[in-house]
Amino acid sequence: MTRYLQVVSLAEARRVLATLMPATKKTEVVPLEEAVGRVTAEPIMAAYSVPQIHLSAMDGIAVRSADTVKASEQHPVTLPDALRVNTGNVVPPRYDAVIMIEDVWIEGETYTIRKAAAPWQHIRPAGEEISETEMILPAAHLIVPTDLGALAGYGVTGIEVLEFQIGLIPTGSEVIEHGQRPKPGQVVESNCFFAAAWLRSMEVSTHLYPITIDDQDLIREAIVRGVGENDLLIISAGSSAGTKDFTAEVIGDLGEVLVHGVAIKPGKPVIIGSIQGKPVIGLPGYPLSALTVMRELVIPALQDYGLQPPEYPAIQASLTRTVQKEVGSDEFVLVSAGEIDGRWVAVPQSRGAGVQMSMVRSNGYLQLAADQEGIMAGDEVRVQLTVSEALAERALLIIGSHDPAIDHLASLVSGEGVIIHSTHVGSMGGLLTLRQHQCHAAPMHLLAPDGTYNIPYLQQYLPEDDLVLLCVAEREQGFVSTTGLSIEDIGKYTFVNRQQGSGTRMLLDHYLHEHQIDPATIRGYDHEVTTHLAVAVAVRSGEADLGLCVYSAAAALDLKFQPLATERYELAIEKRMLDDPRVQTLIRAVRSPAFLSVLTRMGGYRTAETGVLREVPRPQPLPDPRI
Amino acid sequence: MTRYLQVVSLAEARRVLATLMPATKKTEVVPLEEAVGRVTAEPIMAAYSVPQIHLSAMDGIAVRSADTVKASEQHPVTLPDALRVNTGNVVPPRYDAVIMIEDVWIEGETYTIRKAAAPWQHIRPAGEEISETEMILPAAHLIVPTDLGALAGYGVTGIEVLEFQIGLIPTGSEVIEHGQRPKPGQVVESNCFFAAAWLRSMEVSTHLYPITIDDQDLIREAIVRGVGENDLLIISAGSSAGTKDFTAEVIGDLGEVLVHGVAIKPGKPVIIGSIQGKPVIGLPGYPLSALTVMRELVIPALQDYGLQPPEYPAIQASLTRTVQKEVGSDEFVLVSAGEIDGRWVAVPQSRGAGVQMSMVRSNGYLQLAADQEGIMAGDEVRVQLTVSEALAERALLIIGSHDPAIDHLASLVSGEGVIIHSTHVGSMGGLLTLRQHQCHAAPMHLLAPDGTYNIPYLQQYLPEDDLVLLCVAEREQGFVSTTGLSIEDIGKYTFVNRQQGSGTRMLLDHYLHEHQIDPATIRGYDHEVTTHLAVAVAVRSGEADLGLCVYSAAAALDLKFQPLATERYELAIEKRMLDDPRVQTLIRAVRSPAFLSVLTRMGGYRTAETGVLREVPRPQPLPDPRI
Repeated sequence: MTRYLQVVSLAEARRVLATLMPATKKTEVVPLEEAVGRVTAEPIMAAYSVPQIHLSAMDGIAVRSADTVKASEQHPVTLPDALRVNTGNVVPPRYDAVIMIEDVWIEGETYTIRKAAAPWQHIRPAGEEISETEMILPAAHLIVPTDLGALAGYGVTGIEVLEFQIGLIPTGSEVIEHGQRPKPGQVVESNCFFAAAWLRSMEVSTHLYPITIDDQDLIREAIVRGVGENDLLIISAGSSAGTKDFTAEVIGDLGEVLVHGVAIKPGKPVIIGSIQGKPVIGLPGYPLSALTVMRELVIPALQDYGLQPPEYPAIQASLTRTVQKEVGSDEFVLVSAGEIDGRWVAVPQSRGAGVQMSMVRSNGYLQLAADQEGIMAGDEVRVQLTVSEALAERALLIIGSHDPAIDHLASLVSGEGVIIHSTHVGSMGGLLTLRQHQCHAAPMHLLAPDGTYNIPYLQQYLPEDDLVLLCVAEREQGFVSTTGLSIEDIGKYTFVNRQQGSGTRMLLDHYLHEHQIDPATIRGYDHEVTTHLAVAVAVRSGEADLGLCVYSAAAALDLKFQPLATERYELAIEKRMLDDPRVQTLIRAVRSPAFLSVLTRMGGYRTAETGVLREVPRPQPLPDPRI
Repeated sequence: MTRYLQVVSLAEARRVLATLMPATKKTEVVPLEEAVGRVTAEPIMAAYSVPQIHLSAMDGIAVRSADTVKASEQHPVTLPDALRVNTGNVVPPRYDAVIMIEDVWIEGETYTIRKAAAPWQHIRPAGEEISETEMILPAAHLIVPTDLGALAGYGVTGIEVLEFQIGLIPTGSEVIEHGQRPKPGQVVESNCFFAAAWLRSMEVSTHLYPITIDDQDLIREAIVRGVGENDLLIISAGSSAGTKDFTAEVIGDLGEVLVHGVAIKPGKPVIIGSIQGKPVIGLPGYPLSALTVMRELVIPALQDYGLQPPEYPAIQASLTRTVQKEVGSDEFVLVSAGEIDGRWVAVPQSRGAGVQMSMVRSNGYLQLAADQEGIMAGDEVRVQLTVSEALAERALLIIGSHDPAIDHLASLVSGEGVIIHSTHVGSMGGLLTLRQHQCHAAPMHLLAPDGTYNIPYLQQYLPEDDLVLLCVAEREQGFVSTTGLSIEDIGKYTFVNRQQGSGTRMLLDHYLHEHQIDPATIRGYDHEVTTHLAVAVAVRSGEADLGLCVYSAAAALDLKFQPLATERYELAIEKRMLDDPRVQTLIRAVRSPAFLSVLTRMGGYRTAETGVLREVPRPQPLPDPRI
């Protein structure tokens, strides 16, 4: 059984990989049409001067300026030698100026002028735009569309650019190609798929091979072929040290394993090997690990080789949530960064499940050094953006209770240039984030003992802040089941609960209290999930018999729904943020007919209050925070 | 003859074009492999939950947690019901926890444990990653490679994206396709070529038609076809109001001309028309005008339509040179922006000849409002970058005397991540720019009366600055001709001169003085060009018989060379800039074997002093600034 070699640092892993990259760069000649995004291998020179010979810049006559010296209004001069030329015509070498036709008196073949011509006036001299052999582009230049005008105009046809070919081999008996519906226990191949797309976007040639099952001989065969056909080979999964992890062993047999295990998290079980002098990478199977290894190892190696991936800026941001970390590994955490009133904040994405969605939702990441111990909420951190700053500046951070309607709002505002990053931490979690001024809007539905929603909680927890509440909808919460169960049945069946701090959990507790039901008697009361849809999925999968969620989640999965209560789902927003164009766009979207029709289509929403903005009065006597 | 309609403002032109864009967005379904760079037309939802059913997260046994409650080290429990599972196996609904195999004592079919299992431990519940119908991507989202993992993994196959098709028709009897060598008077089509590449980089479908000659019927035919086949049609050139400018007339015949003339410079003679309800743009022929119309009119319209071109930041920069401007038009000036010691400076690019190279060399532009009167050197201006800030931060501004060796240095440092922007203003121009701290390095070769180079001038003009000089080479200057002419011949033949303030001009004047030759007796003394290669081109084209330039320029065009002097060509650099990594990269490049071999290959350079860094002592008695 293969064991990890000694785990090495990220810097050391990069150094090892760099030594394996080809010393001589591969190049190919591509037509101009295909050159955008490629990197020049050599300086590109003008094939000819433009203009190649001097040309008239006017309609007029070409003259020898010396002949014109004495001309004036009083003393017109009839020229001994002149030639009629139009704009763009060649001016023969014996002439050194052009006089505009408007200034010439023409009789038959004779030209009379009343003003001297300065030498070289109205002439576009040869080489005025560019001289033959002058450099158009240096070597190592990333070709952009606006370069093509000069390249075409100055006689460049083919252009020699850097080339690099990467093969990607997905492995795993449980892995299937995308486009098929996975059976339980199967997973869709996605690591090689997104890695190949990423490489192609950097103009790397990729060869994405079919999936190889966990069979040592087949893996060996695939690797031999892949090494032969590419400059670098990536094998996805099988890079750990388990019984079915053959990658390291096969690489060791065919060549040499130089690194097995890098002190990064995620991404530790990476292999760097060499077969026939070519670099071979064993990519870990966990998607965030694969992302990290691609970003931190493979792409830097391609950059050293000379390719030019897009670069994005780093910003300083305040962290919204504490990030735990063990000493010993460099750790990478995806974040959603957003700018709030001139300060950046960074919301750490989940590092656990739903990792593919973390990749989709994030717009940057943190790197915590090996000797660091984690970062506290509120600490300033350096966030490396993975999008342009302009795009990150469009982020609108919505943190709190989740409703599928928020996703639809994201669609509506995206067309207006606002990118919603929503994080589901429940109503109370959102309220506490808003208190730290770390989100633009906090969705909530917090039922107070007096039967009103949200305001009493804001008054208690944010007594000093000027706030408004934007009503998204009044929505129905109720029991979801396959058979139509209701609150009466809650003790008899297995329940799936929402997490503490969520408004739905608080709603449940309110009604359990009212019905005098002891939570300890409910099977599954401790089984927590974090979204309405997750409740519905748990019910549909048979994991639970009933749960509490919004109507739209039950309807989306064709489940039965027994209404319990209608609640006011609102976005709490700091009043000063109402001047923010992103918040204004959000408010317009909530009030738009398109959003009303989304709510109607999803069902379970009353829209009479949708779009209503109410002020939160400064606090009066406090309500009891514990219902 | 067509005349301009009333010239309208840029804002009005944008408004008119916006009204012509299709109200209903066109979409198409593309496979995931082709989705990167496209914009989603609809929200994209998960086709199934992942996992679809709960799975074991460990190798172990699935259990009912209730059965395990009493287990402890002292009181092992043999389970009545348990199932052996491996990681990824389905956990049937009757179980609600998994115990790791290491914690189980197995005898035949019986499992004994010594520790209670928490409900839901080591189980990946259904929907943990994503719930069926949960939104993966909102509408109006620009798809990036890292989105593809989630899309593939969560069952998305085809993806509905925005579509837009633009046709481009180049016109002009003097225009030829690129790849052919233009005869005198011909020009290579480059406007539609770079515009199409630009549009394709935004994932617009383009149809680039063959060139149509200046024939009204043929142009009409091409436009009819182009309107039929595309959503928007661009016709290049013919948009002015000259006799051969048919575009406006044909558009007017076939539909309606809504705008002819926009108050922007460059770019005024633009046409916005409508044929069969589709927008038709007449693009001016001058390349910078075409660039401006694409950037300021066409791309904003596509952005409003929903496509997402890359966005780059704007910076505040100090202008190195005064920019003149007439009141009445918005004016756009390409610049090279560079960061010097924490401040940005912007070098305006030439607005005249060599415009294609201005496009290549710039990394941003200024917009001067219609009512503005121009900007003075040293003023702070807003520069809209056309590259990422990271790329702009790599710019190394070299302003002063030009030598072909500088272009080769640009190639060498580009591979190290430094982008040289060199501007040719002559030795004295560079020296004065350096005095304003507006360049990183000023190349110069200024011969002082004492026979030494550069230091006396720096001491006189920058007496307060701590400076160093980096020697690029000692290079030969001499007379270039087709026949081997020398200084003896200078009165007898036509000369081509370099501009005032250039070191070469000063060198010539020094030797004319020494040989007691009166400049007034030299034919062509007033005929100035700005580079060594331009001198050589003028000689080869027959425009002049001789000129003064470096050997490499003469050799590049196969001309004869008569040496006059060897001069010290050095880069003046502020001493504090030696800590700048870009300057350090430059110095390494000058000292590299690769650069020495470039100098040797070009010829005419002595390399004994190449790479020598000498300090400029603080001034002693002043030399005479006029030679």
